[in-house]
Amino acid sequence: MGKEITSRSEDYSQWYIDLVKKADLAENSDVRGCMVIKPYGYSIWEKMVEALDKMFKDTGHVNAYFPLFIPKSFLAKEASHVEGFAKECAIITHYRLKNAEDGSGIVVDPDAKLEEELIVRPTSETVIWNSYKKWIQSYRDLPILINQWANVVRWEMRTRLFLRTTEFLWQEGHTAHATKLEAEKETRLILDVYADFAENFMAMPVIKGMKSEGEKFPGAVDTYCIEAMMQDGKALQAGTSHFLGQNFAKAFDVQFAGRDGKLDYVWGTSWGVSTRLMGALIMAHSDDDGLVLPPKLAPIHVVIVPIFRTEEELAKISEKANQIAGALRKQGYSVKFDNRDTHKPGFKFAEYELKGVPVRMAIGPRDLENGTVEVARRDTKEKMIVKLDDVVAQIPALLDSIQTTIYQKALKFRSEATTKVDSYDDFKKVLDGKGGFVLAHWDGTPATEAAIKEETKATIRCIALDAEDENGKCIYSGKPSARRVVFARAY
Amino acid sequence: MGKEITSRSEDYSQWYIDLVKKADLAENSDVRGCMVIKPYGYSIWEKMVEALDKMFKDTGHVNAYFPLFIPKSFLAKEASHVEGFAKECAIITHYRLKNAEDGSGIVVDPDAKLEEELIVRPTSETVIWNSYKKWIQSYRDLPILINQWANVVRWEMRTRLFLRTTEFLWQEGHTAHATKLEAEKETRLILDVYADFAENFMAMPVIKGMKSEGEKFPGAVDTYCIEAMMQDGKALQAGTSHFLGQNFAKAFDVQFAGRDGKLDYVWGTSWGVSTRLMGALIMAHSDDDGLVLPPKLAPIHVVIVPIFRTEEELAKISEKANQIAGALRKQGYSVKFDNRDTHKPGFKFAEYELKGVPVRMAIGPRDLENGTVEVARRDTKEKMIVKLDDVVAQIPALLDSIQTTIYQKALKFRSEATTKVDSYDDFKKVLDGKGGFVLAHWDGTPATEAAIKEETKATIRCIALDAEDENGKCIYSGKPSARRVVFARAY
Repeated sequence: MGKEITSRSEDYSQWYIDLVKKADLAENSDVRGCMVIKPYGYSIWEKMVEALDKMFKDTGHVNAYFPLFIPKSFLAKEASHVEGFAKECAIITHYRLKNAEDGSGIVVDPDAKLEEELIVRPTSETVIWNSYKKWIQSYRDLPILINQWANVVRWEMRTRLFLRTTEFLWQEGHTAHATKLEAEKETRLILDVYADFAENFMAMPVIKGMKSEGEKFPGAVDTYCIEAMMQDGKALQAGTSHFLGQNFAKAFDVQFAGRDGKLDYVWGTSWGVSTRLMGALIMAHSDDDGLVLPPKLAPIHVVIVPIFRTEEELAKISEKANQIAGALRKQGYSVKFDNRDTHKPGFKFAEYELKGVPVRMAIGPRDLENGTVEVARRDTKEKMIVKLDDVVAQIPALLDSIQTTIYQKALKFRSEATTKVDSYDDFKKVLDGKGGFVLAHWDGTPATEAAIKEETKATIRCIALDAEDENGKCIYSGKPSARRVVFARAY
Repeated sequence: MGKEITSRSEDYSQWYIDLVKKADLAENSDVRGCMVIKPYGYSIWEKMVEALDKMFKDTGHVNAYFPLFIPKSFLAKEASHVEGFAKECAIITHYRLKNAEDGSGIVVDPDAKLEEELIVRPTSETVIWNSYKKWIQSYRDLPILINQWANVVRWEMRTRLFLRTTEFLWQEGHTAHATKLEAEKETRLILDVYADFAENFMAMPVIKGMKSEGEKFPGAVDTYCIEAMMQDGKALQAGTSHFLGQNFAKAFDVQFAGRDGKLDYVWGTSWGVSTRLMGALIMAHSDDDGLVLPPKLAPIHVVIVPIFRTEEELAKISEKANQIAGALRKQGYSVKFDNRDTHKPGFKFAEYELKGVPVRMAIGPRDLENGTVEVARRDTKEKMIVKLDDVVAQIPALLDSIQTTIYQKALKFRSEATTKVDSYDDFKKVLDGKGGFVLAHWDGTPATEAAIKEETKATIRCIALDAEDENGKCIYSGKPSARRVVFARAY
């Protein structure tokens, strides 16, 4: 296995692409902007789905499935939503192909034109609120707490594997409530679920915050987000939770009779994370040798590589390896014993480093004699000699330690790459120098936000929920500001 | 809860639709031919997915994800495949909407026309074999054993919830092998997995068989299937497994170097089951009071309904009910304690019958005094008085018994509704009378098959794998036949 991964210092973008491809996570397809998620990449996504799905269910949500297609007129019902989503999308205009009359192949049958075009869902608020209208008459029908696992399509001009693709996989929650307070609580509950998942499963620290007017979801009253920092100092929006107010209820005329019999519009939320998280996971932790996966999302926790010359040696090692593997599997760990005789140990070591397997054990004839095994952790590359009799018992703590260490490393990186600045000059210097998150005062106007973005490519990632009150002056306009916001260049 | 379900004897079709809607399984959306799978229906589908996914993984398969869109030219590469699938499909011709110049809304931007139209996948052989071409160079790259959980679209003119919808959810396996034998084994392995799932999870007996030339998958060499019988005597194809030969490998030029260095085309299989299984599950077991779910696919195994007048009574019952629920949940059963004071017990009984919950417990004040609980099983409607102290211990065996009883009932029904006939007159009489599966001799020609279909609407469901050799004469042509085949009218 030749690694041939560009180093991060040489070209961060190329490092990312190399890694995604070499580690067999995904590749571009021949269909413009659409990726193929390969089995190893998909197995990591499955771990994400499993963990998130459990968290949603534990907080009272259920899954359902709504149509892939959205009639054009649905999108047009919510004014800012259509501005945001109806532009770059996949449009179905016909429903039949036929043999060309000149025998040249198959062509679109002009007689099979749809009366109304269908849009492949870029997000499902419209088609779901159209259903909610039928489901909700009274306060007794509320709340509705539905999530959907689905594919969506946004016609992106510039795509990058996982981070921005025309088709992507995601979950989208769509909830309906009787009161504003309840909907706001739901929005924040999900924000907490997302932050919990990012920090405790992905080992990726995030800032919880609110988007500015300019960055919020088209159709939302408020958009909350979690923002993560990648190793190149750029920000990545890892999940969003929207308080929709009564916007979609009004657009689709969804009213309910309260306990007092009075009609009112329903309050809504929507929220989602996507396969973009795969990009975040890769960019947050990996190194020049490949992926570094937090154990909680690793498809393989432990790989055992035998070091042998003869079949006899392999047989002896296999016996011990299978014992260890069996004992660990009983505890719920995923263990691979790679006994291929077609590849050398060094090749295997490199392969599992590339794939980010958290723990590697190597067992050779001398280990058997000594009753030891070499245990290597992927994150720090540290190697330990452990007694064969102890190794099974030590794995749980080792995996916990790896999970924590990866998180702490990312947290330290973020902390060091976060800078407070008080002038526009410093702001630009930091952005062009060390990069990262820049905490600065902003006057709260879209005009200033737009000007800064235009001049520096930095955007307001969020107004952090835990931002301290601090009077200051906007770095751009000099007007008063009550707290700093988080600026960064972003994916 | 008013049941308002049409009875099966009155109108079987309407019974089915009523049931799907009243039990909150699914409904038609405003998007032509597309359904909304509601939370309760989706939770059953999730149980199916979980069981099947485990079976696929246990037999060495992995999941991956391929693009939703297929370039028109891909479909055209395999001649019979394009005939079968390229006709009624959703065609994307444009990628942008814009505001109409006259301010009338949004319209398709004629400048955003795709050079090549994209088809929403009706099945993914073409887009997947296009990837396999890149992945396969040598015998070392084989076998590839990939499954995909996805949505697909076939532009159906007449749709019916779950049974035939424009968009549906499914899994599609696509495997690639070095030898014909290995691919054939895979095709049969999956057929066995499907039959195992149908019989042991869905409690639905199936006939394993091979499709005739006229009924096989466009692009396959052989199509194997499992055929189930619904309560109206009609057949339902519940899953198919295709031996593709080298057809797609040739269409996409996928060759591999063998151990001897010689190039050969790769052998393929594909196989799928879909949300259609939901329709089969409903129609195989349910009755005029609602769903009858086999415990292995029931989202709720046991519901506990308290019978009470006062809050004090409810409190006492709740204590006991929560003990029972807790003890069962520890063993992995899903238990609902319905302590709503807004609905009467009779309403709740009807509701859980409608939803097919396998076991219902009712606990009232007198039960507490006597130390008993009333246990009712959904399938037979039998009620038992069980000691409170024993009830937890009895549930596992009771659920097993329900699973088995449902299967045996369906098996008995199928057996009684299967008839051997030796003349075309008898054939037509049986079809128009008792219906069901008709075992008859056929001369093996597509012409006879087509004529019988035209005249009777019955099709050859399959040539059963366990059909005995038996010389006879074709009921239609009188020509010799070596074994009987299974005819039926079908969904």
